[in-house]
Amino acid sequence: MTSATEHTFAPPVMEARRWLDGVDFPPERPLINVSQAAPVDLPPAEMRAAMADIIVNEPQAHLYGPVLGLPDLRAEVASQWSVAYGASITSKQVAITSGCNQAFAAAISAIAQAGDEVLLPTPWYFNHKMWLDMAGVQAVALPTNAALLPDPEVARRLITKRTRAISLVTPNNPAGAEYPAALVLAFFKLAQETGIKLIVDETYRDFHSQTGVPHPLFQQADWDQTLIHLYSFSKAFRLTGHRVGAMITSPELMAEAEKFLDTVAICPSQMGQFSALWGLQNLTEWLAGERNEILARRAAIETNMPQLTAQGWILKGCGAYFAYVEHPFAMASDKLAQELVKEAGVLALPGTMFTPSDDPNGARHLRIAFANIDADGIAELFTRLAALRFSLAPSS
Amino acid sequence: MTSATEHTFAPPVMEARRWLDGVDFPPERPLINVSQAAPVDLPPAEMRAAMADIIVNEPQAHLYGPVLGLPDLRAEVASQWSVAYGASITSKQVAITSGCNQAFAAAISAIAQAGDEVLLPTPWYFNHKMWLDMAGVQAVALPTNAALLPDPEVARRLITKRTRAISLVTPNNPAGAEYPAALVLAFFKLAQETGIKLIVDETYRDFHSQTGVPHPLFQQADWDQTLIHLYSFSKAFRLTGHRVGAMITSPELMAEAEKFLDTVAICPSQMGQFSALWGLQNLTEWLAGERNEILARRAAIETNMPQLTAQGWILKGCGAYFAYVEHPFAMASDKLAQELVKEAGVLALPGTMFTPSDDPNGARHLRIAFANIDADGIAELFTRLAALRFSLAPSS
Repeated sequence: MTSATEHTFAPPVMEARRWLDGVDFPPERPLINVSQAAPVDLPPAEMRAAMADIIVNEPQAHLYGPVLGLPDLRAEVASQWSVAYGASITSKQVAITSGCNQAFAAAISAIAQAGDEVLLPTPWYFNHKMWLDMAGVQAVALPTNAALLPDPEVARRLITKRTRAISLVTPNNPAGAEYPAALVLAFFKLAQETGIKLIVDETYRDFHSQTGVPHPLFQQADWDQTLIHLYSFSKAFRLTGHRVGAMITSPELMAEAEKFLDTVAICPSQMGQFSALWGLQNLTEWLAGERNEILARRAAIETNMPQLTAQGWILKGCGAYFAYVEHPFAMASDKLAQELVKEAGVLALPGTMFTPSDDPNGARHLRIAFANIDADGIAELFTRLAALRFSLAPSS
Repeated sequence: MTSATEHTFAPPVMEARRWLDGVDFPPERPLINVSQAAPVDLPPAEMRAAMADIIVNEPQAHLYGPVLGLPDLRAEVASQWSVAYGASITSKQVAITSGCNQAFAAAISAIAQAGDEVLLPTPWYFNHKMWLDMAGVQAVALPTNAALLPDPEVARRLITKRTRAISLVTPNNPAGAEYPAALVLAFFKLAQETGIKLIVDETYRDFHSQTGVPHPLFQQADWDQTLIHLYSFSKAFRLTGHRVGAMITSPELMAEAEKFLDTVAICPSQMGQFSALWGLQNLTEWLAGERNEILARRAAIETNMPQLTAQGWILKGCGAYFAYVEHPFAMASDKLAQELVKEAGVLALPGTMFTPSDDPNGARHLRIAFANIDADGIAELFTRLAALRFSLAPSS
């Protein structure tokens, strides 16, 4: 290895996109792309109109802003999150970042250095693994149970003197699992007790199937000494191309993260920040409708699942944008995923992209990012998968 | 040290901004801020109108784009750079990044890892030093001569088996020095001969006092195996708040940088990229006028300098956005810079923010980022500096 990047793998989404090269998708069977967890629809028209107004009338949208983000947006996040989590969060505990991936990288840089360790439940989110690889921080795989939930007592046994954090994603990418509030709290208490940080990435929070406070972490005494909360505005307001995320933790850690963010970004896109602020102030009702639609698609997954279950498939997790399925074929899932492009006109990422090579939740699994296909599309997807006639694996 | 960020210092521009806290600037003597190398004027009105049109009519402006940037922008950069440098550059050799700082971080991540070394001429650009610190890569100070130019033969003696690159900035931030073409070529040949990379950050290229090809590096055989060129759209088109930069090097190195950029940004702001593309296609003449204005301000620095020279000040470098001056006072420049805020209503960064503690071009120096003050403002700045009555240092 001669460079930081050589310690990690190529971006999975870009790699999967290359599987499409040279494959024809006939009009009667167009590609069903369930590979990327991103809205393909535009922000609502009223938001785009507001954004055009910002471009013309808000001088600050064109100029450098503070490294830690637009003060009005930090304050609005603090205020709305305080209500959503039944807590008291100040704007000094909030930073805005150029997307949630960058928030994770900043958090890790602020709490860990090369040689340290961070626990990630498997299957993990690949960009988290990639950042840890490039930072020289060991990603310690934390196996999950049949419901793809991690166990704090298993985690406890993996903590060493080099462990700096446990990092959770809930609702989970790629597993779809919604971590119960009590489980998240148990991890918080484990982290607090052992003097490490708990990172909780809630990028898909707005599509949680339950309403109300998703966990009580912000209500705990001295929460900001243990918790690092991460968020993305990309999903809620379809602002993917504008790169806006957030991090919530202690002001002391913000001062550390500020060094990283200044050096890698200077400031988040001001246009993206003004847009996110407008969204928070104007799109609450619209977002509730979006959530209902995603929940309807999730229900469609569950409705259509029996035809696959009959053929040996297993639905391991389903929530937010994702279904995580085990397939019945005598084929590693990275091979199957490439076959699916040609045989079924379906692009989905294999479990191997989310797991270490020996993980039981990888080699036989696929992630289905269903947010971009409606109920009819989901029915068509399942029809195509049910028609596959690969050799079956011996039953285990 | 317990984290990557603890290996470096707080962002200088943010720190300097805090020196303003609690200081009153009377109307008859407003603050003269020469601390930040960034336009404070907006992009031209025709560009803002084009941007509003993009927001409304370009769907891709709102969605994720490729990690390495908008294909049309990569192609336009390849085409225009080929003309500007008398060379043949392809779009596969171009990546777009979220600003030029991020391009530097991506380049270092693609070529070096913790324990390696990179040579930086001093005074250096602080964000380069900060990234190297956080990456665990040693920044080896390469001293410069009286004209603030580095010497390839001095560099040669500092190269070890751990050296991965020499990184130059021309025109230089903070020194203002324009590196002669022959000097840049000599560094290229040194890098090529010793099997390391030459990073050339040309953020201020558009304000070079000479017209024509600034250096022949892109004309060298196999240039992309040695050269990593960096650029920023922030200065040319006043797009600071939109975060767009570029990196030009080999496609093989792009594949490495892609891992870093995917993980830390996913993609640059699409809005910023469409705006930069519009600027490249429509603002050539406007940018020529901007250059003339900056050159006029540079001339105003030189015209006003004699009144300071008479009091023992020395103009060490002057070009692009910067003058780098040595002051005559018996006071370290980090102390002087804070006194200047109170005594003269001037905010400028001290040389200590650009140098290791023992560097002869640091403790007695100030960087004057003059791009935002017109000829009258420059005259007023020099009048205020000439009125300072601090104790003089013993002549050296």
